[in-house]
Parts: sequence; structure tokens; C-alpha cells
Amino acid sequence: MEYRIDVQPLGKQFLYGGEDDLLTALHDAGIDVESVCGGMGSCGKCRIHILEGKASDPTPQEGDLLSREQLAHGERFACQVYPQGDLSIYIPASSLTSQQKLQLDSQLEVSDTAPAVYSRDLEVEIPTTPGDPGSDLFRVEDALRTAAPGVEVRRVDLLGLRDIPKLLRENGGKVAALLRGEELLGLAPAGETPLGLAVDLGSTKVALFLYDLSQGIMLASRGFLNPQIAHGEDIVTRIQYAIEGNAPRLMQVVVEGINAALSEMLAETGHTRRAVCEMVLVGNTAMHHLFLGLPVEQLGKSPYLPATDLPLEVKARELGLELNPAAVVYMPPPIAGYVGSDHLAALAAARLWDNPGPCLLLDIGTNTEVALKVGDTIRSCSCASGPAFEGGGLSQGMRAGEGAIEGVSIDAGGKLELAVIGNAPPEGICGSGILGAMAALVAAEIVDASGRILEGVSGVERRDGELVFYLSPPGSDGSSGVAVTQNDIREIQKAKGAIRAGIDALLAEAGLGHDELREIILAGAFGTYIDPAAALSISLLPPVTLDRIKQVGNAAGAGARSMLLSTAMRSESEEAAGRIEYLELSSYPTLSTLFAADMYLSEKAVLEAKQRFKL
Amino acid sequence: MEYRIDVQPLGKQFLYGGEDDLLTALHDAGIDVESVCGGMGSCGKCRIHILEGKASDPTPQEGDLLSREQLAHGERFACQVYPQGDLSIYIPASSLTSQQKLQLDSQLEVSDTAPAVYSRDLEVEIPTTPGDPGSDLFRVEDALRTAAPGVEVRRVDLLGLRDIPKLLRENGGKVAALLRGEELLGLAPAGETPLGLAVDLGSTKVALFLYDLSQGIMLASRGFLNPQIAHGEDIVTRIQYAIEGNAPRLMQVVVEGINAALSEMLAETGHTRRAVCEMVLVGNTAMHHLFLGLPVEQLGKSPYLPATDLPLEVKARELGLELNPAAVVYMPPPIAGYVGSDHLAALAAARLWDNPGPCLLLDIGTNTEVALKVGDTIRSCSCASGPAFEGGGLSQGMRAGEGAIEGVSIDAGGKLELAVIGNAPPEGICGSGILGAMAALVAAEIVDASGRILEGVSGVERRDGELVFYLSPPGSDGSSGVAVTQNDIREIQKAKGAIRAGIDALLAEAGLGHDELREIILAGAFGTYIDPAAALSISLLPPVTLDRIKQVGNAAGAGARSMLLSTAMRSESEEAAGRIEYLELSSYPTLSTLFAADMYLSEKAVLEAKQRFKL
Repeated sequence: MEYRIDVQPLGKQFLYGGEDDLLTALHDAGIDVESVCGGMGSCGKCRIHILEGKASDPTPQEGDLLSREQLAHGERFACQVYPQGDLSIYIPASSLTSQQKLQLDSQLEVSDTAPAVYSRDLEVEIPTTPGDPGSDLFRVEDALRTAAPGVEVRRVDLLGLRDIPKLLRENGGKVAALLRGEELLGLAPAGETPLGLAVDLGSTKVALFLYDLSQGIMLASRGFLNPQIAHGEDIVTRIQYAIEGNAPRLMQVVVEGINAALSEMLAETGHTRRAVCEMVLVGNTAMHHLFLGLPVEQLGKSPYLPATDLPLEVKARELGLELNPAAVVYMPPPIAGYVGSDHLAALAAARLWDNPGPCLLLDIGTNTEVALKVGDTIRSCSCASGPAFEGGGLSQGMRAGEGAIEGVSIDAGGKLELAVIGNAPPEGICGSGILGAMAALVAAEIVDASGRILEGVSGVERRDGELVFYLSPPGSDGSSGVAVTQNDIREIQKAKGAIRAGIDALLAEAGLGHDELREIILAGAFGTYIDPAAALSISLLPPVTLDRIKQVGNAAGAGARSMLLSTAMRSESEEAAGRIEYLELSSYPTLSTLFAADMYLSEKAVLEAKQRFKL
Repeated sequence: MEYRIDVQPLGKQFLYGGEDDLLTALHDAGIDVESVCGGMGSCGKCRIHILEGKASDPTPQEGDLLSREQLAHGERFACQVYPQGDLSIYIPASSLTSQQKLQLDSQLEVSDTAPAVYSRDLEVEIPTTPGDPGSDLFRVEDALRTAAPGVEVRRVDLLGLRDIPKLLRENGGKVAALLRGEELLGLAPAGETPLGLAVDLGSTKVALFLYDLSQGIMLASRGFLNPQIAHGEDIVTRIQYAIEGNAPRLMQVVVEGINAALSEMLAETGHTRRAVCEMVLVGNTAMHHLFLGLPVEQLGKSPYLPATDLPLEVKARELGLELNPAAVVYMPPPIAGYVGSDHLAALAAARLWDNPGPCLLLDIGTNTEVALKVGDTIRSCSCASGPAFEGGGLSQGMRAGEGAIEGVSIDAGGKLELAVIGNAPPEGICGSGILGAMAALVAAEIVDASGRILEGVSGVERRDGELVFYLSPPGSDGSSGVAVTQNDIREIQKAKGAIRAGIDALLAEAGLGHDELREIILAGAFGTYIDPAAALSISLLPPVTLDRIKQVGNAAGAGARSMLLSTAMRSESEEAAGRIEYLELSSYPTLSTLFAADMYLSEKAVLEAKQRFKL
């Protein structure tokens, strides 16, 4: 008896075998839910919501810690739940371990599965008497004609071929053929199902998703910090490091990281490397080039030319990846020097080309890619938004881990409330936290629309000569507290000004007004966690009604997964990539004045500045 | 002013630049003609025949050493000749260095050239101002659409791609695209012509031929002894050595040998490895498998199954070959466990499939492959003839090098005449020598048709208790002389019996009598050097008139070259390989009685034995 467990907002499904409690099952599926008491039902860390489906009744432990209202609303502790049918659950961010937050998956779904690699079970004769029986491969192809009529094999992978005689004899001729288009990748024991790996190679984080290709089910996922960070936080530094002769090192650390993470996932799911027959990798253009060993010199200076903006298929072994020896890595095309295949993957996950539009899609990061679809035209650009929204360059910025302030509100009476990841004492502030803080400070008139902290207002103090606003005051124990400084606000203004200027430039190119935008899609981890109302209130986004804003999570990862599962999605994406009109902002005539206007922290002030600058 | 020099029996052409003497030009073209005096015209080692064309008049040095008759017949010393137009010359074996004898090329010609790799010169724009100019590769493909309309690029080699940005910028956008079907291999400086390498990988010798693919002209050739010999003279020993875990070593020594020989040829012709974009390799099935790292266990025991009998294309870099990083090795299909792609190449060189037939093609070696074409059917088999015809297993056998007896005749008066390679004192006897000796000894009734040396006949003596016939008597200086022993004769009988039994089995399968054979084609070094009359007289070959026997030299090498220069030849060969009916002799019911009959040394005795055995 197997049930399908659908996990939101991770967008994962897995099969539940019918014995374990849900917490154990989630862990087995590679979903890192918090737990302190070890499944006793006493710590309340593994709180989840059951959205749909039947499960065991609440236990006394749950009754002790959850209100009747919460229980009625579907809140449960995963360690106390035994599924009794297909289940759809929601895991709040507070129940995920901080490592997991790196991996937050998209809610976008893969609609069809027609993967590049598939298997067909065969029975191949193994002759023992002399005659003219043909080679091992000949008889495999002969058996294939029966088992898979219409499949035409024109190529055989050399490394796959090397194993054919042994696999045939070890399995008495009962084998599975691993097929990829017109290529026979090799054989496997009969019944073995091919797996696939989707990788979202970000400059900060790397997310991996392991799939059963024949069923289209995610088996495990992992995330890790991009080890290239040791050689430079930002892309420009890494390109420089590569030009200095260290490109192989940058390639190697990522490949090693992927190999190690895959190794863990395989151990966890009881599969072997040989089962992993296909991989899709998306990333920004610098990540793409460094991963493939392509030169980045020409990418690092104007006019920022990629070596290729065409799709590529490469044998995984040529890159040092430890998958099936015959496995292929599919690399969707980059769009431009600063708009990568991760952006294309995000467009694919959102199927932006099928969106009636006009709509915007943003993936906010150190470089923020923006796409605007109007009619049949998709335009894209890249905004140099810097690391502020990831906590970089801020006095007390930190990544979205335990102790990071992720939400700030100030009520009409001036009362400050904080949301801290892990409900821990606040240690710093992450991207969504600083955005919330900005919106709250402007709304409470502690910061004006030009970004100035107003001296004399309650809560504003001077620290080392600089005006700051304490979100969490210094403790009597000597702890420093967490403050927003004047400089922090300037950093955020530059980031939001850069993004908004890109949006405005795309709208101007399309001759489109804000009011015509029917949808704004926010992709990426940051786009998922931010409060859209806050983003609107500081005019990071153009003024639309809140219901037009959609948060889709890690769309690049979702796009990579959809391309892993569907060759049709690859074709669609490639076709779209060829049509996307890239707008190079660095040579956009009014960019600097747009940027100056877009740094204001209210739509009204932005508008006034634009009129002043005659934009 | 350039003249084309056509060199027979090597089947080579090269372009003569108009300055050097012919000996120098031959050396520059990689043809190793003997020379002792250093071009002074005094040693006479570089004797050639001018078959056609105009050259400088004979010099006094030639007049001193050559008779008027010889000069009138076209005999010259290469060092004294200056071509004055296109020239066709013949180099007698005695003028070739013994290393060259390994490489003896076929006289069979490549009729058309349409190689897999070709180049197209391009001018690619290199933008310097921001905009949306597309990637480097995009602009290369764009330029290709103009330079080569109709060429559709669907794949780009990763290693080729890595060099594109640099090559574009170093050459100001003036580059040559290296194309192979739908694959762009990469770029080269404009005007660079792609080269190709054909390799005949024999278990004894390895022959390499370097070609200018665009002109179809051979630039150089090399031969070396297969270094695997250190791990076993015969294939069975090498297969055993491979099974014991040494397969990588056997692969490595061959790859290193090819790399080294290619390196020499490139240095000689002033080309770089990067220019070498395609390779074709033919060999027997064990050589084929060991070269590709395919397992040989199943090949080493009955029913002797190859891992594959289909054609393969492999990136040269995956095998450790140092060609252009994107170069491909084309491996024509083996036919069966003991009939390799070298045999297919020989059939291709002879275009056996276009021969009206009935005809036989033999490639005599340790394993002798025989093909019989009757109507539209080609049957082939492999005869375990052993190493005797290569001098192996004989008391004084040696390879066809200096000092080897290569011809023996005994006139009616019993006078013995020897031909010794290099006109040196006889040191041993090579394959063609022992065959000639056998024929002469039987004709002179020193040996009877059953192979017995007749005691008491003049010249027959006992050495260490065994009957022998001295071809060259022991010297008074203590040298041993060269003798044919009773055991030598038995070894040759087994070899010739095995070959003739294979021929007889093929004929019987086809229901064909000897008299219906219109042609017997002898391929391979041994087949080229033997005296067909001798082969007929000891009934190695079925009785046909001498004019039906054709000697074509290294047909396997010629076939490899034709497949290097012509993709059409590859298709033809693949198509033929699929149709060839393989006859497994080890399970052929009457093989042992056929063998017993075919060991007799005259056609009459063979026929009587067959009648006796009711064959």
C-alpha cells in the first residue's frame, strides 16, 4: 500500500510506504523538517498543516500543545501523523531546518513527463555454440526491435558498450536498455529505472533535485553553498580569479560539490550512480561558462559576450561528474552575458510564453533578471542590484538562517514586532527582513521617502556617529542588538533603484504603462519570502494591486526540473530563448536618471522625481 | 610550379615543389628509400624505375653503374633525378628501407574524396560596443550560413567551443570552421586545411597514413611494430593478458605508439596536432576491442563473440589520442570474432561488392581471412593459419628484413639461386622465401607431395638427427648456414592446409567449383611478396590460371585510407558488412578431413586425398 505525499511549498512529491510516521517519511524523502524531541510529540518543532487527505487522529501530545482551532485547521505535528491515504501537506518555513531554506522549491509544477532517457526491458539471447549469432550489441539491438518497435538506435556510448558483455552474462540476458534519442547509453539489470538530476547552480547556492525519470517523482533534494564563494562572493571577482588561471579550480569545486551531494542523496535513497542517466544544469552565464570550462575573459568586459548562447549536450564524464558513465548533461542556452539559463528556466517554470501578458517576471539576487512579456514579445534585462537583498553590505546583514530577522512591523501605536527565523534571539537581518523594516520605517515616518533616518524620532539613536534605528536593543549582557543604519538604507535604495530602473526601462521599450501589467511574478528564494505589500510600499515594484503579484519560489530550480522531465519543455525553452529580445541596460540612454528617481522609497516620490527629471 | 609524383607500388601521391632531387622529395614525403652515399650517385641503393613522365637526363654517375639497357628501360637513381613534369615511378622492394617494407601500401586507389571533416573560411564580426550581438558561437553560425549555405550545425564540440572566443579574437574574426556532418568541431586560423589519419592496426605491425583531407593527398606515412608484441606474439596470448587485468596497458602502448608516430609525421610535414581532425582505424577484432577498451573475455572463448559488430564513432580524446581535441575516430564494423574490420577494409579497397565474381580475396597472416563473392553474396571465414608464413615457428624463420631469403629457385640442373633482402648474406628465411623454397623443393623432387624430405637426394643432410636441406651451407667461418628442416615443412603444410581448407569450405558452401573462380585477390604484405606460381604449385591456392591472380598489397591500409577520404565508402562498407555471411569453421563438419587433404603439396595429391576421404 503506497500513498503519494505532496509537500508544499516545496513542490515535492514522494511515495509513502505505509509504516513510518510522517516525520520519518519526510526525512527519508530528503525533506529536513525540524525536530528536537526525537519524535516524542513534545517539542512542537515539526508543525505542519494537512491541506488535503486522510491521516491518523491527533494524539494526546498534539492535544496538549495545539489549540482545538489549530487542530480543526489541520495543524499537526509530523511525528504524530500516520497517513491513511494520499496526502497534501504544507510545511511552514519555521518547521524547516535552515539548510532546507536554501532549497525552497517552486510551487510550479511539471505538467508532462517525457524525459530524454528511458529504459526498456529486454531478453537477449546469449549463444553458447559456434555459428553466426552476431555480436552482443547486435543481439541487444535485435531484442530492442521487439521490445521497443520504432526505436532506432544509431549510436552507442563507448563506455556503455564496454559493460554490455558483462551485464548480459551476469543477468542471463535479462536487462534493461537505457535509451536516449537515437543513442543507446548502455544496459542495466532488468527493471532498473533511470534517474535524473536537476541542478540550479546559483552563484550563492546550489540546489540539486534527484528524480525517478520514469515516474516523474522527486526522490531527494539537497542544497549547499556554492564553494566558489571562497574565491569571491560576486561574479566579477570570480571571473577575475578565473582569468588569472584558476578557472579549472572554480570548475572543480562545483563538480566536487555536486558529486558529494549526489552521493548523499543516492545513499539516502538506495540507488547507485549508474542509475543517474541524465542531468540538467541551469545557472547564470558566468556559472554556466565556468562549469563547462568555457573562457570567461570576453564575458568579464563590455560588451559581455558569452562564448555560446545555444543549448549544449555534454557527456557528464567529460566534466568529471560521477553519474552513469554514459550520462548526458543538458545545458539550456544562456540568453546574454548577464541573463543566464537560470532565468530561462524560471520563464519555463512559469511558462511565461503561454502567459497572455502583459506580465513581468523577476528573479531578485545580486543580479536581478527581469523579463517582460507583451503580446508575443519577451524582453529581458539584467539589473546590477548588488548583494543587499541577500544581506550583503549591510551592517548586520546575514543569510536567512536561524537568528535572522525576517519580518518587521510597527503598528499605529509605534509598537515594534519582529519575526525571527527559528524563533531564536535576533542576531542580524536577512533580505526579506530589511525590506520589511524599510517599509515599516517609512510607513511609521522614521525614514523619509528620500531614505533619510529622521533624527529625534523615537527609537532613532546615534551609534559611532551614524544614525541608526534599533530593531532589537543592545542587551544589558553586552550584546550589540540589531539596528538598521543610514548606510543600510542607502544600500537597499541602490538595490531597489537598480531593479526598478530595469523594470521601467523594459516598460518604456514596450511602450507600456504600469496599469497595463496584469501580473508580476516573483521568483527565487528572496522573491518567495518577501512581503509583496512591503515591496510595493517602498516602490521596489511598480504600483499594481496586491492580487496581481504571484510568488513562485525557486522557479529556476523548477524550470530545471521541468526540463529534466520533459524534452518538450527543452524545445519550448530553446525556441523561446531564440526569440527573447535582450536589453543591455549599461548602454540604455536614460538609465542613470531612471536609477536616481527609482531610489525614492514611495511611489509618489518616485513619480515626482521622474517628472522633475523629465522622464 | 608543382608536379604530382605518383609512387608505385606504394599507391602514394605527393606534390613536388620543383627544387629538390627526387630522393630528397621522396624522403620529405615520408617514403623511406635506401641511401648510403648521401645522394652522390655512387651507392646505387636508391634505384627506381620511371614509368611515365619527364625528368632530367641521366648523369655520368648513373651511366657508370647502370647499363644502357637499364637506362632505356627507365631505371634511375632517385638522387640523380629532377622531375620536369608529373611523374609516375616504381620503387622496387630492394630500394625501400626494411622499415618501409612494413608499410607496403596497396596499389588500390581511392576513387572519390568526400571526407567526413571539411573546413569553410569565415569572417566573423567581433563586436566591441554593448547591444544584443549574440554570443561568439551565434555569430560563427551566422557567418556559416553565408559561407556554407545548406550546412546545418546542430552540435558543437565542447572542447572546440572552449577555443572559439580566443581564436576569433586572435585572428580578427578571419577563421576556418571545421565541420563534420551536423557538428561544428571548432575553429582554426583561416586557410588551415584539415588533416586525417588512417591506421591499419595489425597484431604485428601498425601502419599510419597522414592525409590532407581537402585535397585527398597523402602527406606522410609511418609503420612500427605493434608494441603489444612484448605481451604476446599471438592474439590468444594477448587476450589472456588482457583478461588478467592488463587490458589498459595493451590499449595504452598502442595509443602511445600512434601518438609518437603521428608526432614524427607532423614534425616532418610542418603541421600541428590541431590540424588532425579525423581518424579511421581498422584491425582484427581483438585489436579493435583492445584499442577501444572493450572487453575481450567473450571474444577469447567459443563462440568467440565480439562486443559489437557495428560501426562506431568515438572522440579521439576519449582514447588518449593526441589529435585535434574535437577529432573523431571512425571504427568500421568488425564482421565476427575472427574476421575484423581490417578484412572489411580490404574488401572495400578491392570494392569486392562491385566485382562481378565469382572471386576470392585472401589476407594471409596468423589468421587468414578469406572472402568469397558469388552473385550478390559475400561469405567470409577465418583460418587459423598460424605464424609460419610470417617466419614464426620455423627453425630459421625471420621477418622480411635485411638478410632474409625471400626467393628460392632450383633450375633443371639442380642449381640453387637465392634472392636475399638487401643483397646481404643470408641469415634466415621469411614467409615468401619459405613458400618459394617449398615450391622449388617439391618441383625438384627433394620433397615429396606428402611433405617428406627425401633422404639421399643431393643437398639433403641430417642436422641434429633431423633431415634438412641447406639453402645456404654452413660457412667455414663457423656460421650456421640457412636450412629448411622437416619440421619447417610440416609447419608450412599446416598453415597452407588451414588456408586451403577455409577456401574449400567457402567454395563448398557456395556450391562452386575451382574452375568457376574468375579472380583470386591476394592482399596484405605477405600476399604481395609471394610468388603466385609457387602458391599455386604447392596448392595453397586452388588451381586457376596465373593471370587470374591479382596482388594488391596492403589492402586493409588502402581500405582504411579510402574510408578516411570518403564517407560514401564508409556507408558502402557498413552496408556490405551487414550482408556478409560469416562461416564459422570451428563448427564446420568436414573441416578436419578437408585440412588433412589440403596439407598435401600438389594439386594432384590434394585431389587424390579428397577422393580417398570421400570429400
